[in-house]
Amino acid sequence: MAEHKLELRENVGATDEFKVTPWEVSGAIDYDKLTRQFGTSRITPELKERLHKDYGSGLHHMLRRDFFFSHRDLDLVLKDHEQGKGFFLYTGRKPSKGMHIGHLVPMVLTKWLQERFKCNLYIEITDDEGFLHKKYEWEDVQAAAKDNVLDIIALGFDPERTFIFRNTEYVRNVYPLLLKAARKVTGSTVKAVFGFDDSTNVGLSMYPVYQTIPTFFEKKRCLIPCAIDQDPYWRIQRDIAEGLGYYKTAAIHSKFMPPLQGVTGKMSSSAGQETAILLTDDEKTVKNKINKYAFSGGRPSVEEHRKLGGDPDIDVPYQWLSIMFEPDDAKLKQVHDDYRSGKMLSGEMKALLIEKINAFLRDFREGKKGAAKDVDTFMYKGKLAKEMWARTYE
Amino acid sequence: MAEHKLELRENVGATDEFKVTPWEVSGAIDYDKLTRQFGTSRITPELKERLHKDYGSGLHHMLRRDFFFSHRDLDLVLKDHEQGKGFFLYTGRKPSKGMHIGHLVPMVLTKWLQERFKCNLYIEITDDEGFLHKKYEWEDVQAAAKDNVLDIIALGFDPERTFIFRNTEYVRNVYPLLLKAARKVTGSTVKAVFGFDDSTNVGLSMYPVYQTIPTFFEKKRCLIPCAIDQDPYWRIQRDIAEGLGYYKTAAIHSKFMPPLQGVTGKMSSSAGQETAILLTDDEKTVKNKINKYAFSGGRPSVEEHRKLGGDPDIDVPYQWLSIMFEPDDAKLKQVHDDYRSGKMLSGEMKALLIEKINAFLRDFREGKKGAAKDVDTFMYKGKLAKEMWARTYE
Repeated sequence: MAEHKLELRENVGATDEFKVTPWEVSGAIDYDKLTRQFGTSRITPELKERLHKDYGSGLHHMLRRDFFFSHRDLDLVLKDHEQGKGFFLYTGRKPSKGMHIGHLVPMVLTKWLQERFKCNLYIEITDDEGFLHKKYEWEDVQAAAKDNVLDIIALGFDPERTFIFRNTEYVRNVYPLLLKAARKVTGSTVKAVFGFDDSTNVGLSMYPVYQTIPTFFEKKRCLIPCAIDQDPYWRIQRDIAEGLGYYKTAAIHSKFMPPLQGVTGKMSSSAGQETAILLTDDEKTVKNKINKYAFSGGRPSVEEHRKLGGDPDIDVPYQWLSIMFEPDDAKLKQVHDDYRSGKMLSGEMKALLIEKINAFLRDFREGKKGAAKDVDTFMYKGKLAKEMWARTYE
Repeated sequence: MAEHKLELRENVGATDEFKVTPWEVSGAIDYDKLTRQFGTSRITPELKERLHKDYGSGLHHMLRRDFFFSHRDLDLVLKDHEQGKGFFLYTGRKPSKGMHIGHLVPMVLTKWLQERFKCNLYIEITDDEGFLHKKYEWEDVQAAAKDNVLDIIALGFDPERTFIFRNTEYVRNVYPLLLKAARKVTGSTVKAVFGFDDSTNVGLSMYPVYQTIPTFFEKKRCLIPCAIDQDPYWRIQRDIAEGLGYYKTAAIHSKFMPPLQGVTGKMSSSAGQETAILLTDDEKTVKNKINKYAFSGGRPSVEEHRKLGGDPDIDVPYQWLSIMFEPDDAKLKQVHDDYRSGKMLSGEMKALLIEKINAFLRDFREGKKGAAKDVDTFMYKGKLAKEMWARTYE
């Protein structure tokens, strides 16, 4: 058997049929082709080295295993860090009723980056976007926004270095800058980048501009951890930033956490509950969903499996362990090899994932219980939050 | 000589060539055709009667003389007033460096309406629009906005019933409602109504929605006094208002105050200073501009003029007196008849206008001197202003 590399095997089943836009991800993705199409760069071993140089705890497994695989200007961000100039982080969340585990991917890496680099972090709750997409009515968006803030706080960001804000609340402080940026973005651009047309409402056409604004919150470089389908937003930012007197934003891009049904496309709460594990799923639901829906790389019968072994590359439970739930390389390698050899059965793989997810969600629920009391700190009263409310961007 | 009607003679020299859009007015306008095109109604004698019924001071001369000539739903506004339900007024101002006398036309009638009906008035300073049109840089827009607020206050609105606000400042309070309205307006609509295209920046495409928002400030009918070229904005409002749970706005429309060069088109500060009297023009400048540029309906020589008489219908100084500067019907009729008969010369007509304008501007300058101390009342601390800052529109 060939030596196993712990990096995720890429481009499984990839054809030219895949599609990646901010509003649609489908097909088996050829990530090499995608980086060429998008004009981004692969994260090199040298960059990985610099990402955890002098940091005792090592590199996060999402970077080690190339789940975060692509970037723009990460080299410049690291240079700014190494030269003492620093940088800041930005991520966001469109309010939705059922946040699922895939939504946490960029947040988890963002948290690691904040801990590692001790930098400011801005988290934009795009309650305007959620509403403009007409998926939700106003009250529903607001309720979802409030709940999502608790979900985010539960992850444990640094309360004095993190500012969580809702677009509809913070708009006064950024409106002049929003206009300056909007003046540089035409209808043609948002049509080309987001697939809008003349039937798109004017609020939605304007909205991508607001999404660029936090990249201008400091006169330092901004680093955005996100799934690669979000890259087009940052291309608009990179087109206009220098004309406004700011840096082009940097980004690091993840692949997509696969839905339970198979390793193509991306997890989506709107595609139906059976494709994802929601943060609100209880232990029994997690168990049932994984057992019932998770696509397995195992063989039809135990006998065949024991004889021929399973295929971790297309086994969703294995992929999830690799991406998110088994940070220990040695343990993951053991699981991989045992599954490949037929020693480990599909049911055992699923049981392992169920155990890991439920442990994660127990911690998460515990964190969320304590989150309500910290909302004020993250949004209004913490060190960074207070600074931000005192500031207007012109 | 036929009996003179004090109403402005309409459609002088009108052909099919005229053009009226929110961004261009040109040609000699056929106002009958325009009301048919726009689908508005003429202000009838019966409506005029109701406009000043039980009001001791009579009807404003801009209404008496049909300078305000067209409306939407004025009958419903008057019915609401007569039934004790009331209504409110809304007007606005895009900041510009040199406000001219034509800009005051809707303001002057608005002031009369507020005095007569004792109702609330909202004045929107569209500092976002001024900037998005790329005519001004940010600092210039802000400086112009501040100065224009003083110009408006100088006119003497009721400080406790008037709220003057800058869009960039008040945006937090209206943003949720702005999104709700924006969701109902497509790219196609703003293209059709405002002549936008794909090269228009997304801020400008969104902007007309903000201009509709003050019509939703109260759950009463809103009445907007404006020049008729602004009507398309209110058609958008009328399309979306009821779906948002508000009334379609009412409007009364004025004709255009002619530029000095002749009775077609409209006065414009961007078309060159010689077409308009600016509020900052001193007495000598007023005199020089009127004498040098004001198009005269007089005859080439004094002899001919004495013999054949002048034509007030195409005489800009007479038109300005009629529209704005000679409210007294008997005096205006005397001027008209004397000019028509040749008794009054063009130079005398001009001298009369110069005197009237300078008297008006003296009062205006005096009012503006005292305006700075009232800014706080109109914008933040007056009865209505305080209520508005305490309110958020969702």
